[in-house]
Amino acid sequence: MNRFKISLEKKTSRSHEVFIGRDILDRAALLIAKGNWAQRYFLITDAKVAALHGERVAETLQKAGLSLESITIPAGEQAKTMATAVAVAEELLRRGADRTTGLIALGGGVVGDLTGFVASIYMRGIPCLQFPTTLLAQVDSSIGGKTGVDLPAAKNILGTFHQPKAVFADLEFLRTLPAREMSNGLAEIVKCAVIDDPGLLELLEDWAAILRRGDDLDTLLPIVTRAGEIKKKIVEIDEKEHGLRRILNFGHTLGHAVEAASAYALPHGEAVSIGMAGALALSQRLGHLPDADGERIVALLQKLGLPVRLPAALDREAIMARMEHDKKKSGGMIHFVLLKRPGMPFVNGGIPGERIREILAAAAPERKAQRRVKTGGK
Amino acid sequence: MNRFKISLEKKTSRSHEVFIGRDILDRAALLIAKGNWAQRYFLITDAKVAALHGERVAETLQKAGLSLESITIPAGEQAKTMATAVAVAEELLRRGADRTTGLIALGGGVVGDLTGFVASIYMRGIPCLQFPTTLLAQVDSSIGGKTGVDLPAAKNILGTFHQPKAVFADLEFLRTLPAREMSNGLAEIVKCAVIDDPGLLELLEDWAAILRRGDDLDTLLPIVTRAGEIKKKIVEIDEKEHGLRRILNFGHTLGHAVEAASAYALPHGEAVSIGMAGALALSQRLGHLPDADGERIVALLQKLGLPVRLPAALDREAIMARMEHDKKKSGGMIHFVLLKRPGMPFVNGGIPGERIREILAAAAPERKAQRRVKTGGK
Repeated sequence: MNRFKISLEKKTSRSHEVFIGRDILDRAALLIAKGNWAQRYFLITDAKVAALHGERVAETLQKAGLSLESITIPAGEQAKTMATAVAVAEELLRRGADRTTGLIALGGGVVGDLTGFVASIYMRGIPCLQFPTTLLAQVDSSIGGKTGVDLPAAKNILGTFHQPKAVFADLEFLRTLPAREMSNGLAEIVKCAVIDDPGLLELLEDWAAILRRGDDLDTLLPIVTRAGEIKKKIVEIDEKEHGLRRILNFGHTLGHAVEAASAYALPHGEAVSIGMAGALALSQRLGHLPDADGERIVALLQKLGLPVRLPAALDREAIMARMEHDKKKSGGMIHFVLLKRPGMPFVNGGIPGERIREILAAAAPERKAQRRVKTGGK
Repeated sequence: MNRFKISLEKKTSRSHEVFIGRDILDRAALLIAKGNWAQRYFLITDAKVAALHGERVAETLQKAGLSLESITIPAGEQAKTMATAVAVAEELLRRGADRTTGLIALGGGVVGDLTGFVASIYMRGIPCLQFPTTLLAQVDSSIGGKTGVDLPAAKNILGTFHQPKAVFADLEFLRTLPAREMSNGLAEIVKCAVIDDPGLLELLEDWAAILRRGDDLDTLLPIVTRAGEIKKKIVEIDEKEHGLRRILNFGHTLGHAVEAASAYALPHGEAVSIGMAGALALSQRLGHLPDADGERIVALLQKLGLPVRLPAALDREAIMARMEHDKKKSGGMIHFVLLKRPGMPFVNGGIPGERIREILAAAAPERKAQRRVKTGGK
């Protein structure tokens, strides 16, 4: 038997910058022209965002001398499929896009994830830029390079890690965002604060009323920046989610199950808010988190207009079944991110189903009065 | 405007080993068990290879204690689609595959490319091992981490770079390989020798008659190893085809056009052989390559049973149109890999269409007598 080794010990840089501000399109255009990442760009957006911002963004980029064409996909999570990805790729091919072409994602998480995915597989990888237009995308999905599409049986199951060349988060886009979409983003911001930044938590408490209104972009700017920087820190350490990055799933184990059990009628942020309340209750009940800390965070979620209890209509057994299903997928364990105190999360891989049922029972609206008092903390 | 940098200067290792030999399945099984790349494996193969080798390979791997299940896809290039990739992914999901699962590709280039692609996007990337069963896959497609699927309009247009954890090339698989499939592999071996290894070229000349017969595995072993090592060297320097790796396309600019113009009726190796003859003729005609060198390589291709002239039935204008089409895709240039002498290729990006037409005319069977005599070389 002959053997040889293919040595691919490489130093690579996927470093890039994130720009956050108000009315930054002009500067973004100049930075892209200067960045020179591609000879030609395609702006990928969805029908809804195209109608609101498509023309203005395209014109601004073209004025800076960029070669830019547009491809529009249908709006909504149901478009986040391999069929849409292939349709975009076929359109790119038809219009002669090659390895010197770059994609610009203009939209929320669906557009960003799908565009990033297409960029990662088109001719084995072309550059991608992100212009997130929702608060959720600005603080979360546009940062960190996760791309993906859904299969009917599971969300985000097919994807890649493909870092963008730059992220431009223009807060002005948020002016056209529905209130429910704002709360999706706020839930993720609370998550960032809870897992990493007690100072941000205080800021959120102070500004909750303004943030809930959602129209004060000057208040949002430092909040969005700080949340993005938290994600940045975690991604820098664990780009491909081998360990630490999992703490970003705080509130998501239960949140995903709740979201799925609602057949995705419940928005992601609301599901995550309920999931965080569940993870906090679990942390308290298992004696990791002082009750006062848990209650404080739950109060903040409520001040921000986010739900912290299961909708009465949601079947608790469906949620349990979903978590059991996820458990099978990950080697028989339900991985919960729990909290010791704000800024100190940890992953617990062995929560008994019984404990989770208790939490679900306590999180249902009609059981509000039964909350146990615990001494907690350790 | 706020800004922060996401620093992702990483040292990564995608190094891995390639094992080539006769009857190496038992050792491969032990190496996989020892490699411990995944907790559970899926053997992905096609219907044809499954019937020939599936059971034996599965049993050998299971005997070494590996958890192994199988998924079979249809045989042939027409299965190399996103639809097949999604079907495999859905089956993996149904059977509970997660990030601790690995894929083992057992088959030719289609199975290897498709399996590698699925591995690269399933849950954003899981490990993959390659068991190439054709000569072409053993010397070429299993090495270097290129994965992909076809779109109706273009082959390999969607894909990734996803290095395998190991490659196990068992020459015994070649015993069941049709003669035409052998010649596919021999064409790529000649290509490797031409672009990088005059010594291998001599070896091929000496052993052409035996190699053409295809049943002498002891003669093949050093040849396959050496061809693999040539590809290894190039991939190590230019993993993602930014430059040098393009020399592996020697014979492929015209070869791909010929293949496409034949509606893929012409096997890849034969098309590449014709393409190499064309690239040699072009190198001679442009005064880069001494005629004697070109003629020597053409003679070797013929000794190996490979075609060096265009089939009479093929429309030369269709071939030109195809190259014009490829040209549009890559910024208006037809990139030809040309030769100065064996082992000294170079990329020429500005061949006038007229010169190519001349070569196509000369390469047609009926124009055999018109070959010009040139002093050549420089």
